[in-house]
Amino acid sequence: MKKIGVRKKKLKIIDNINGSIMHAIKKSDFEYKSFGEVYFSNINYKSIKAWKRHTYMTMNLVVPIGFVKFVFFNQELGEFKEYSIGPDNYYLLNVDPLIWFGFQGLNKGSNLVMNFANIEHDPNEVERKSFSDLIYNW
Amino acid sequence: MKKIGVRKKKLKIIDNINGSIMHAIKKSDFEYKSFGEVYFSNINYKSIKAWKRHTYMTMNLVVPIGFVKFVFFNQELGEFKEYSIGPDNYYLLNVDPLIWFGFQGLNKGSNLVMNFANIEHDPNEVERKSFSDLIYNW
Repeated sequence: MKKIGVRKKKLKIIDNINGSIMHAIKKSDFEYKSFGEVYFSNINYKSIKAWKRHTYMTMNLVVPIGFVKFVFFNQELGEFKEYSIGPDNYYLLNVDPLIWFGFQGLNKGSNLVMNFANIEHDPNEVERKSFSDLIYNW
Repeated sequence: MKKIGVRKKKLKIIDNINGSIMHAIKKSDFEYKSFGEVYFSNINYKSIKAWKRHTYMTMNLVVPIGFVKFVFFNQELGEFKEYSIGPDNYYLLNVDPLIWFGFQGLNKGSNLVMNFANIEHDPNEVERKSFSDLIYNW
C-alpha cells in the first residue's frame, strides 16, 4: 500500500507562568532535510486557501496560535486526508512535494501557520487549482 | 566604536483577503548562518522573562502575533538597547551570542516570539541572571 505522503508528529509544549515554550523543528529531527525558508500564513476564521501544490518543496507545518484544518489530496492515490492542528492538538505536519493542499481557519481569533520549507519560495514550482476543481466536504 | 551586537531588518507582510503572508528568514539572507532549531516563546501581557544569554547561539527573533518589547544588554560596552516588534512594526532581530536579553508582552491577547537559532537548544550554553541583577526601566 502506498503512503499518502503526509506524516504527523506530536510536539512538546513546556508550560511556564509567563508564557509557554512550544517546540517546532530541529536539525536532528527525522523530518529535517534541509533549510530554505521559514514564513507565516495567517488564515482568517472560516476562510479557505485551496488548492496548491509544490513540485520540489517539502513543507513542515506548525500552528502555534489558533486552530487550522488542513486537507491534503494525493492525486496518484485519489485519496484525501484531513488534520486539524493548533496549540490544543499540537503536531508537526511533514508534507511531501506533489501533494495538493488547502487549509481553513477554525478559530475566531488569529490562526497562524508556520511553514519551515526545505527550499526558498519559488513561484515556478507552485501549481494551483481553483477551489471547485477538487470536491471536498469541508 | 564597537557595535552592540543586535541588528534589525524590516520584513515584508503580503496582504491577502483570506489572511496575510509574513516573511521570516530564508537561506540567502545575510542573517542566515546555519540552522539548529526553531521554537516559539509565548509571553503574557505585562509579564517579563529576564535575564538570559547564550554563549554560542545566534538568535533570529520574529513576532508574528502581538507586540513584544526586547531589551538587550551588551556587558562589554555597559550598554542597553530596546526594540518593540510585532506585525505592526515587523522586523527581524538578529542577536549575537553573549548579549543579555529580556522580553515583555505588550499585547493584551497573545504575544508570540519565534526564535530561529543556529544551534539546537542546549541548557549548558545558557547563562542566567535574576531580574533585579540588571536595573532597567521597563
